[in-house]
Amino acid sequence: MKLIRFGQPGKERTGVLIGDARYDTSAFGEDYNEAFFEHNGLERLKEFVAENTAGLPKVDESERWASCVARPSKIICIGLNYALHAKETNAPVPKEPVVFFKSTTALCGPFDNVIIPRNSVKTDWEVELAVVIGKKASYVEEADALDYVAGYALHNDYSEREFQIERGGQWVKGKSCDTFAPLGPFMATADEIADPNNLNLWLTVNGKEMQNSTTSDFIFNIQQVISHLSQFMTLLPGDVISTGTPAGVGLGQKPEPWYLKPGDVIELGIEGLGTSKQTAVAYQP
Amino acid sequence: MKLIRFGQPGKERTGVLIGDARYDTSAFGEDYNEAFFEHNGLERLKEFVAENTAGLPKVDESERWASCVARPSKIICIGLNYALHAKETNAPVPKEPVVFFKSTTALCGPFDNVIIPRNSVKTDWEVELAVVIGKKASYVEEADALDYVAGYALHNDYSEREFQIERGGQWVKGKSCDTFAPLGPFMATADEIADPNNLNLWLTVNGKEMQNSTTSDFIFNIQQVISHLSQFMTLLPGDVISTGTPAGVGLGQKPEPWYLKPGDVIELGIEGLGTSKQTAVAYQP
Repeated sequence: MKLIRFGQPGKERTGVLIGDARYDTSAFGEDYNEAFFEHNGLERLKEFVAENTAGLPKVDESERWASCVARPSKIICIGLNYALHAKETNAPVPKEPVVFFKSTTALCGPFDNVIIPRNSVKTDWEVELAVVIGKKASYVEEADALDYVAGYALHNDYSEREFQIERGGQWVKGKSCDTFAPLGPFMATADEIADPNNLNLWLTVNGKEMQNSTTSDFIFNIQQVISHLSQFMTLLPGDVISTGTPAGVGLGQKPEPWYLKPGDVIELGIEGLGTSKQTAVAYQP
Repeated sequence: MKLIRFGQPGKERTGVLIGDARYDTSAFGEDYNEAFFEHNGLERLKEFVAENTAGLPKVDESERWASCVARPSKIICIGLNYALHAKETNAPVPKEPVVFFKSTTALCGPFDNVIIPRNSVKTDWEVELAVVIGKKASYVEEADALDYVAGYALHNDYSEREFQIERGGQWVKGKSCDTFAPLGPFMATADEIADPNNLNLWLTVNGKEMQNSTTSDFIFNIQQVISHLSQFMTLLPGDVISTGTPAGVGLGQKPEPWYLKPGDVIELGIEGLGTSKQTAVAYQP
């Protein structure tokens, strides 16, 4: 099953993607949030869709694609989780997962414009595989970790490199601007992804391929990441974990790094999880 | 007005503190969350209390004190915001605020036990002044920043120093364990605190004074912190900002750092914002 949300910011409604068509599941009566995942929402939604397939209204093609899940309690990101990306940023290959948070206010739809923040000169892209947590997780063993996954989605972990690296010590400043977390087009339930640790992912800027790799190059795979995080904090249903980006970000370009400017078009995709597309625009007060 | 919450975890109810007595405001029908603060909840609650003072049920003294506000969209912390504390941790005095997040799952009541996490040997204390945001804030000027404050509360920003510093690059791992954010006893509305940048704050462990300072020693005051944060992310109503801790944490002890062990009793307070008390206990599966 593929979960989607649609509609204007603050007025999002829920749906499912069947083939290429979006169907409105508003009648199910629950957003795809913590309570939904906690109370067996995926199973109940599946039954609802099976019982109502003929009657589900189609979503008009003009409707905005929203983030595929509702605002979670947290967006946790893994840094430097591909060896070549660590190298391009001149960072050592980490001995254990590097963890940081992104403000959940950064969440947006997969085709929304990405806003280059005021005073930004280093807005960068990062295609990533995101994991959506299905049930409360604390001190989880690696062997059990995939049982805690509700599904997977495509994520662009936009990053302002000056804010992240040159403005006072911790990365969160460069990760949290509005529109810096387009999530989707859809969340595929875990049963749809045979091996999340073996998916091709790619990103282009203005049609030029910048990133192209596979999650089989993870330094820490999904199971290790979930188990590791759960040693330090409780993961809640609906929480989003973004698993790091492969080489090819703006910061890593030779001979000089380069970054997004208004008008640039960013397209990205992951095998089995669709594609998304953002256009960079300047911040407007 | 002083906002309190009470009751067992997951079943918290709202109230107000008048003198030394807690009164149940459940009949008001709203938790102290984002929607409450966003929709002028403080004014409406004030009217409700004024109209119902005689009829408000008293909260039984045996009832647990819960976090004084509901789970926010984020808990943002400022690091190294007192010069002497930066010095004791061997960090340079920052040129602009050091920002990190704490998982909101760390939130707990002001008299709850603090759980020393599994595998922890460096659980430390940090008395801090917390600010609760009253309305959505993006690109706010310092001169206007205090208009965005709903109120203030006492916070103990518990920190596992090995997780924070020795486990892979970013601080969030050492800040996010369950029970690492006891907030309260109450949130005082902004009108009750004449000058938040001039409040005495202190902390003792087993009766011994460890921290005693004043927020007039802030490197970055409340206005600067709110304005700064709002350049990098949108602050939402109900969000909690913890403004940093003064010197005297376990990490800074001479000749050797020392940390909490089961049975230790931590008491803390801020002028005008009451006191709280936690007992350290070992993690139990």
